[in-house]
Amino acid sequence: MKTILSGMQPTGYLHLGNYEGALKNWVTLQDKYEMYLCVVDWHSLTAEYENTGDLKDKVFQMAVDFLAGGLDPEKCAIFIQSEVKEHAELHLLLSMLVTVPTLTRLPTYVEKKNDQGLDTYGFLGYPVLQAADILVYNADYVPVGKDQEKHIWLAADLAKRFNNLYGPTINEPQVLLTEIPTIPGLDGRKMSKSLNNEIALAADEEETAKKLKRMFTDPEKLRKGDPGRPEICPLYLLHRIYTPDHEDIVAPCKSGELGCVDCKKRLTVNLNERLAPIREKRKKLVEKPDYVIDVLKDGAIRARRKAAETMAKVRDNMKLKYY
Amino acid sequence: MKTILSGMQPTGYLHLGNYEGALKNWVTLQDKYEMYLCVVDWHSLTAEYENTGDLKDKVFQMAVDFLAGGLDPEKCAIFIQSEVKEHAELHLLLSMLVTVPTLTRLPTYVEKKNDQGLDTYGFLGYPVLQAADILVYNADYVPVGKDQEKHIWLAADLAKRFNNLYGPTINEPQVLLTEIPTIPGLDGRKMSKSLNNEIALAADEEETAKKLKRMFTDPEKLRKGDPGRPEICPLYLLHRIYTPDHEDIVAPCKSGELGCVDCKKRLTVNLNERLAPIREKRKKLVEKPDYVIDVLKDGAIRARRKAAETMAKVRDNMKLKYY
Repeated sequence: MKTILSGMQPTGYLHLGNYEGALKNWVTLQDKYEMYLCVVDWHSLTAEYENTGDLKDKVFQMAVDFLAGGLDPEKCAIFIQSEVKEHAELHLLLSMLVTVPTLTRLPTYVEKKNDQGLDTYGFLGYPVLQAADILVYNADYVPVGKDQEKHIWLAADLAKRFNNLYGPTINEPQVLLTEIPTIPGLDGRKMSKSLNNEIALAADEEETAKKLKRMFTDPEKLRKGDPGRPEICPLYLLHRIYTPDHEDIVAPCKSGELGCVDCKKRLTVNLNERLAPIREKRKKLVEKPDYVIDVLKDGAIRARRKAAETMAKVRDNMKLKYY
Repeated sequence: MKTILSGMQPTGYLHLGNYEGALKNWVTLQDKYEMYLCVVDWHSLTAEYENTGDLKDKVFQMAVDFLAGGLDPEKCAIFIQSEVKEHAELHLLLSMLVTVPTLTRLPTYVEKKNDQGLDTYGFLGYPVLQAADILVYNADYVPVGKDQEKHIWLAADLAKRFNNLYGPTINEPQVLLTEIPTIPGLDGRKMSKSLNNEIALAADEEETAKKLKRMFTDPEKLRKGDPGRPEICPLYLLHRIYTPDHEDIVAPCKSGELGCVDCKKRLTVNLNERLAPIREKRKKLVEKPDYVIDVLKDGAIRARRKAAETMAKVRDNMKLKYY
């Protein structure tokens, strides 16, 4: 079985974007791969080092969503990055093999540095830690979208550089390119917690209905009767995912026969129906916090076992073994 | 008892410069402080990541010299940095609290970058790892020379920043400024392995004699009879340390009565006499490699215990504790 590593920052409750863009894909992959899924709390410190107060709850809620969304802890190791110290050790070793200009030239660095004013040493090293996350499990594949491709290439470069210097040791991981559907948030922009435009998996039916009521639609369709344009309507993008017969909406929307209020109601019903089993499972899990913690503990044990194997080889081949 | 942390890169056999500049001072300090002495192998990777083949022997020989030079493993923990993973973990956490410009402005960075063409991410982070080395033992003092003062200040700044963000956790270490005598090498420049001008503690009497024979003296004193200038003679600098009645040399050197050949012979006798007990102890230690390894193992256990204590507090206060 080939190995996959993936991770997610502990943002707390997952929203539809996280689910459709990552979690659903992982659930499919867990049957075919040895899988390590990491809640990357150290990574979240690059931006959020001043706000760690609710990290514990965020990690817990995320683990609940992972399980509710269909990840099977028998099939994949779900764990917290900082519980496996080998990530930090390999990060330090890899830091000797990558130049500062290589890191400052990465587009995500330039972008975030300008947007968020981040200029810490740790933020610059984000992709080095990401490489360590991947290489420490000797991963074959990393499922990511186009925007993360360059980071995986850097990880592969570092593996190659390591192998050239110290002999064959670590797999050069490959990108498992994932079609990530753009899930619009309530305001039509990409769904994102930081934009406060999200619908959480954990939301109840009422909250979902309330949120969808204020979702943006075609701005030129002001009332029922006005002709709509599904092709530019963010609501329709959600229909495409959650409404099986979504094509039947197009004509009545365009003619004006279907108003946005009714259209939202229809989506609400379909979305709630789709999320019902996840929400039900979620409720049960929240009542068994010890079980969720046990999953994370067990995942860390399995992750550490694999990481320790890799690090033993790494130290051996680097001649960092003294007794 | 206050705590001291100090470290040395594994360069192998110690020379007179290392002994007079650091080891001798540590031997004095071990009676008054809880002391952690670290062979910083990870640090050596910043420059020497391509040449790790003889690291193991270098670490061993250094440990032998530490013990032969008078360090008492009952009094201080002597260990290898990479055996205490907590250094890497704290390094990663501290990396979030220091900006890239703070690091690129450090004079040692600028100097070495230009001299040795080093521009890796790990090299830029050298002082962050050094800060982790110090803070992970909650050290009160770090014995260093003037040239390293700024690095200790950075460590203190990082401790303060950490405490401000997460509450009182780590001591702000202070510099224990050490008068480091300049030990001239055979060519008159500072004694240094990289300049190949050193006399090793481990050298035997004959080798020491041979090396001193080719040591630079006053370049204008070509033969016995020529007047010499002790005040500019590198050989005389060694006499000041190893020849108790060194002031008696000044007049006959200046008059020309004492030739350099004889002057070197006199130093050879005195230096060999001074080093005899260290060399004898050294010989015995080399015959008991298991004992030396046990010292390093035991040192690592004690270091890990202390480091784990600090890291437990660090994780607690950062709220990086999940179960």
